[in-house]
Amino acid sequence: MARHTPKVQRLIDALRILPSVGPKSAQRIAYQLLERNRDGGLQLADALTSAMQGVGSCQQCRTFCEQELCSICGDVSRSQSRQLCVVASSADLYAIEHTGLYNGRYFVLRGLLSPLDGIGPAQLGLDQLAAMLSQAQFDEVILATNPTVEGEATAYFVAELCRKHQVAVSRLAQGMPVGGELEYVDGNTLSYAFSGRKQV
Amino acid sequence: MARHTPKVQRLIDALRILPSVGPKSAQRIAYQLLERNRDGGLQLADALTSAMQGVGSCQQCRTFCEQELCSICGDVSRSQSRQLCVVASSADLYAIEHTGLYNGRYFVLRGLLSPLDGIGPAQLGLDQLAAMLSQAQFDEVILATNPTVEGEATAYFVAELCRKHQVAVSRLAQGMPVGGELEYVDGNTLSYAFSGRKQV
Repeated sequence: MARHTPKVQRLIDALRILPSVGPKSAQRIAYQLLERNRDGGLQLADALTSAMQGVGSCQQCRTFCEQELCSICGDVSRSQSRQLCVVASSADLYAIEHTGLYNGRYFVLRGLLSPLDGIGPAQLGLDQLAAMLSQAQFDEVILATNPTVEGEATAYFVAELCRKHQVAVSRLAQGMPVGGELEYVDGNTLSYAFSGRKQV
Repeated sequence: MARHTPKVQRLIDALRILPSVGPKSAQRIAYQLLERNRDGGLQLADALTSAMQGVGSCQQCRTFCEQELCSICGDVSRSQSRQLCVVASSADLYAIEHTGLYNGRYFVLRGLLSPLDGIGPAQLGLDQLAAMLSQAQFDEVILATNPTVEGEATAYFVAELCRKHQVAVSRLAQGMPVGGELEYVDGNTLSYAFSGRKQV
C-alpha cells in the first residue's frame, strides 16, 4: 500500500497542532496547499516563523508586542489613566478595544489560575501586577475575566490583591446577552439577570 | 483603538489560506499558537517550507513524490501491471490504495477539466497519458474520477483518448453507498442504483 511521502506526512502531522484539525482535515489541507497554493503555503510558513520568533510582550501590560511597550502603554493620554482593566488574554483585550468604550490601561494575565495545569500566580505575572498597583495610583481595577469557574477564581484572587493595595475593584456585569431570548438562556444566567435587576 | 501588531496581523492574514478559516478563526489560531504553542508553530513553519519546496511529481504517474519515481511506479511488481487507474488527485489515489483491492498502476490528473478556470487537457497532463498509453500495453483503464459534472466530463474525455489507443475503459460503479438508507439517498443515486440492478 502506498503511503504519503515523508515530507507530506510531516506536514500532515504538523498541521494537527491547529485547533479542531484532525488527521483527515490535515491531509485535506496538505494536499490542497500542495496542489493549488504553494506560494500561500510558503508565505504562511514565513509569517509563522516571524511571529513565533518576533512577537514578545509589553513590559508593562504583558500583551503581545514587538517593541518594549505596546501601543496602549506607549500612548501618553492612556498611560496616565487611573483605570486598569485585567484580562486573561490579548484576544480579550482586542475584544474590549473593539467596543471603543474603554480608554484606560490594561494588564494581560495570559492565562487563568489552574493549579492542576501548573498555572499559579507566578505564571500570571501577579507580582508584576502588584508592583504596578503600588507604583501607580489607580482609582479602579476592572476584572474582565470570563465568567467561568477558572475566570471567577482568578478574579477573586486578583480582587484580594487589589484590596491589599486599597484600590476599588469592579467586575463585568452578568445577565441576559443583548438579543438573547429568555426561553433559551441557561438557568444560571437567568438567575444572575433576575437577582441583578435594575430599576427603570 | 489598539490593533494587532504587524507580525500578528500578517500571521492572521496568512492563515486565511487554510480551508474554512475566516478572520475570527484565524485570530483565534494565531493567539493560541503565540500563547501556548510557539514550538509547534515553528515546526509547522518548517514542515510547510520543506513540503512546498521539496515535494515534486512522479515522472510517470504525476502523483506527489520526492524522488524521480513514486513508490508505486518504482515497485517492479506493479510497474508491469496491465491495469491503469486514472484519478483526479493524490488524495484519491491514497483512498483507493487504502482499500487494498487494487494492485495496478495509476495516473494522477491533478485536477479536472474546467475550461472556465483555464484547466484544459494540457494542465491535466493528457499528452503524457497518451504517450503512456501508446508505449505500454494496457488491458484496461479504470476511470476513477468523482461522479460530479466535472468528473464525468473529464472521464468522457479520457475515455475517448483510450478508445483512440484501443484500450478497454471502465468506470467506477454508481449506486447505493454501503450502509445507506433508501429513504435518505438522493434521487439521482437511486435512479443509478435502480437501472444498474444486478441479478442475485
